[in-house]
Amino acid sequence: MATAAAPVRGRGEGTRRCILDEAALAFARTGYAGTSLNDVIAATGLTKGAFYFHFPSKEALALEVFSSKQQEWAAKAVEAAGRKESALDKLIEMMHATCDLHETDPAARAVARLCWELGEDPELAPQMKPFLTNWFDILEDLLRAAQKEGDVRKDVDARAVAEVCVASFIGISDVSHLLSGNMDLRQRAEQLMDLILPTIRVQNNRRAPAPMT
Amino acid sequence: MATAAAPVRGRGEGTRRCILDEAALAFARTGYAGTSLNDVIAATGLTKGAFYFHFPSKEALALEVFSSKQQEWAAKAVEAAGRKESALDKLIEMMHATCDLHETDPAARAVARLCWELGEDPELAPQMKPFLTNWFDILEDLLRAAQKEGDVRKDVDARAVAEVCVASFIGISDVSHLLSGNMDLRQRAEQLMDLILPTIRVQNNRRAPAPMT
Repeated sequence: MATAAAPVRGRGEGTRRCILDEAALAFARTGYAGTSLNDVIAATGLTKGAFYFHFPSKEALALEVFSSKQQEWAAKAVEAAGRKESALDKLIEMMHATCDLHETDPAARAVARLCWELGEDPELAPQMKPFLTNWFDILEDLLRAAQKEGDVRKDVDARAVAEVCVASFIGISDVSHLLSGNMDLRQRAEQLMDLILPTIRVQNNRRAPAPMT
Repeated sequence: MATAAAPVRGRGEGTRRCILDEAALAFARTGYAGTSLNDVIAATGLTKGAFYFHFPSKEALALEVFSSKQQEWAAKAVEAAGRKESALDKLIEMMHATCDLHETDPAARAVARLCWELGEDPELAPQMKPFLTNWFDILEDLLRAAQKEGDVRKDVDARAVAEVCVASFIGISDVSHLLSGNMDLRQRAEQLMDLILPTIRVQNNRRAPAPMT
């Protein structure tokens, strides 16, 4: 114990988390260009020195807000999928979990705003792409599993469907945000799935109800 | 002729058009928050007085750029639809015409950026909604016509499908912009239609080829 250095004030993981939370709210409210780093620092109550120990610039802060939210959301979506048995049910459950996050996470808008604002910057755009393709990968894996389980037609291009679903959901959530403040997001997402699922599903494939265990 | 006042320099419709074109390029490059009104004025070569005669503020300018582009695009989409006979073919032709515009109009990105940036402003958001709902109306009318023509199932909710298509296309164009600079927009839009059309189409409804005229 004698060898452990005393923690330097403001340099711990909790402080980093607090900065990310404050920054996410600021980016959600005013976007990347409209957010002043000084205002974020003031909101955290940290000294500039303590703040810059964690994040050297607004760009680094924004990238980390985006990245940590994406990781958190992907983990929650995958966790939600775990509640269902079949891959197709997992996919639908993930969609609902993502609607939950849009409805309840005050930082949800930060993710959308940062994605498009940073994505317009030619130097930062390459760093945004992996987050999109990560969602493509998750959905593609589920669709391939659903093909193996006999729920999705074998001749369906799982990658193409995954990309259409992710891109369409992004557009739907932006439209829902503008028109209803996300009040109708779930309904719009369900309407999307109602249009896509009949095309990819194996016809007349009605699974037997799960046996009582 | 003697009664016609000489046009005051810089106050004509041509000047207004020139301002809108310069502003659209600036908003496409740097977004609303990132665009300086002074830079736009300098790019037009106008005096501040001549500029402010047309647009009293950056907000007024951005709203007019967005509105005029939306009107131009809707007109081009409707014109493209006129090249086809059936309502369902018109709808698909409109989608292709919109892909053309995204591929060829250097101001296309201004429309997307302004939509989301102005849409985040609580005071301006209500002014952005009618442009979205106008696209919903155009597609809904075509889908209802396609129902009357026997190409789309009567039990399909034309409004819901129209809204899903518009919102999904917006997301697809944003994703395509980020991932490929719009190079794969048309392919992604076609994949969306390939997933939605089989669900709404009247099954086995194969129209006879148009007679030679």
